[in-house]
Amino acid sequence: MTNPKKHVLITGGAGFIGSHLADSLLAAGNAVVCVDDLSLGRPDNIRHNLKNSRFAFHKLDILNRKKYTAIFRKYRFKTVFHLAANSDIQSGGQNPGIDLQKTFLTTFETITCMKKFGVKELVFASSSAVYGDAPGRLAEDSGPRWPISFYGAAKLASEAYISAACENHGLKALILRFPNVIGERATHGAMYDFVRKLKKNPRELLILGDGNQLKPYLYVKDLVNGILFARNRSGPGLTCFNIGPADAVRIKRMAEIIVAAMGLKNVRFRFSGGDRGWTGDVPKFSYSLAKIRALGWKPARSSEQAVLTAIKEYLGKWE
Amino acid sequence: MTNPKKHVLITGGAGFIGSHLADSLLAAGNAVVCVDDLSLGRPDNIRHNLKNSRFAFHKLDILNRKKYTAIFRKYRFKTVFHLAANSDIQSGGQNPGIDLQKTFLTTFETITCMKKFGVKELVFASSSAVYGDAPGRLAEDSGPRWPISFYGAAKLASEAYISAACENHGLKALILRFPNVIGERATHGAMYDFVRKLKKNPRELLILGDGNQLKPYLYVKDLVNGILFARNRSGPGLTCFNIGPADAVRIKRMAEIIVAAMGLKNVRFRFSGGDRGWTGDVPKFSYSLAKIRALGWKPARSSEQAVLTAIKEYLGKWE
Repeated sequence: MTNPKKHVLITGGAGFIGSHLADSLLAAGNAVVCVDDLSLGRPDNIRHNLKNSRFAFHKLDILNRKKYTAIFRKYRFKTVFHLAANSDIQSGGQNPGIDLQKTFLTTFETITCMKKFGVKELVFASSSAVYGDAPGRLAEDSGPRWPISFYGAAKLASEAYISAACENHGLKALILRFPNVIGERATHGAMYDFVRKLKKNPRELLILGDGNQLKPYLYVKDLVNGILFARNRSGPGLTCFNIGPADAVRIKRMAEIIVAAMGLKNVRFRFSGGDRGWTGDVPKFSYSLAKIRALGWKPARSSEQAVLTAIKEYLGKWE
Repeated sequence: MTNPKKHVLITGGAGFIGSHLADSLLAAGNAVVCVDDLSLGRPDNIRHNLKNSRFAFHKLDILNRKKYTAIFRKYRFKTVFHLAANSDIQSGGQNPGIDLQKTFLTTFETITCMKKFGVKELVFASSSAVYGDAPGRLAEDSGPRWPISFYGAAKLASEAYISAACENHGLKALILRFPNVIGERATHGAMYDFVRKLKKNPRELLILGDGNQLKPYLYVKDLVNGILFARNRSGPGLTCFNIGPADAVRIKRMAEIIVAAMGLKNVRFRFSGGDRGWTGDVPKFSYSLAKIRALGWKPARSSEQAVLTAIKEYLGKWE
């Protein structure tokens, strides 16, 4: 790796979103260091960058303080993009220790290392899950914040610690609350689940919940574009943005799009019932995008377009 | 200890607020188990209850999972009052690991044990610090929540996990956001600090900040009365109340009251300057008490009366 004065660090850099972010940051000329414990991240996601002299990958558990500290000592980071997390919300419902370790404590260790080595800029991947199952159009600074999943709790806990670090450590932090993100390299989520099930049984699809869950979907490359846009517009101290498309797609509409894209016919939909897919799932949400819109950003694709683009990519790759 | 069917657990039960709560719960006929690591709690605070057959004390670090689990196994708790925390906000600014361990992770371990042993009712000591340095009259469900101390961050992180536990574990939780609490057995805070300094040097008092910090003060026995009131009025799932008096006292006014109560004259006040006592201190806050007022509760004492009562108790004890 060449030694430009400052590198950027991506935690979870071999993951779904982290690896796309690495691609974009490399394309923009940055020197990029990725760390990932490869629990959800995959070597395939970063293989194409391994020969790039401006790219380095370290397999690493962030909670191994000695090894993580050594990474900070080795590189003089200007910015940390903290994306490492247990993104599998359902698994956290079964074992809250997963989100504690992988989502919250990785944040704590990251801000601790940043303080120790004087790294002043943090970009944090938060989530609409911090809002819980709240009515209305949720804005960045409005309440309440009663997460219903341990994933959402760990993201909110992370936000709280980042906020305190801005005051106590002079950190500049950008918190972006992501909606559902879809596209190539995803490791779970409804689209991933549906394709997998339909390949196994093309005649029937079990949809968790009653099919009426209504959520915004953001295409991963649009998200990365938005992350880099917001980063260039954030001020000192703490900045928080909701990020996503204005519309939403019903889960049964997504199923229809996937069935059509796969060229299947007469697929019978079965529903597990209830208004949500699982305990901790927020069945409907809608948040205000006025703040990031006011700066001039919106995603290139609507939720429905994101679903269409993502399924084509999936199938192109998987067939 | 007699063995009534159900005991209540107080974590931090030898501490300032926890020990007063134990007194009240015993007086009301409950069987009370206190755990405390005695890092801030003191044996003196509970000594008077040690001969009570309905009282038990265990010196314990909640993060010792094996020992904590054994306590849950031994007693069949109906309710946990989780008060254990690092209540020394300033120390957390120097070492955020203290609040992580003592304030947040104790909450995580508590909800984990409650789930394991089917304990369904939690009362949690939260703090106005979750609101950070926000303008306006802060209501329970309004935003934002950008804590500026690691203490506030750890309390907000705890709230987030409790919220997720209500959804995922069927917990019934009462979250009470305390203001500054004063009275006998306090181990720190401005009153404690001022008395200590004036005993050392009765001619001069150094006041951190510019003296204009304006905060509500709640007398500890009024707080305990409020905790038990709110507990009897909370519904299933999650309930959150701000609790405190409607008025506030300036820090330099508190200094004047203390000087007068100590019978001192011509004390010169010096100010360290700036609008706040230390990094992470919220200089002024005012939160809405409409929600708990609507149920018919307010403290017996205003903030100024609380200061007067507390200083008399302090001096009675200390002289």
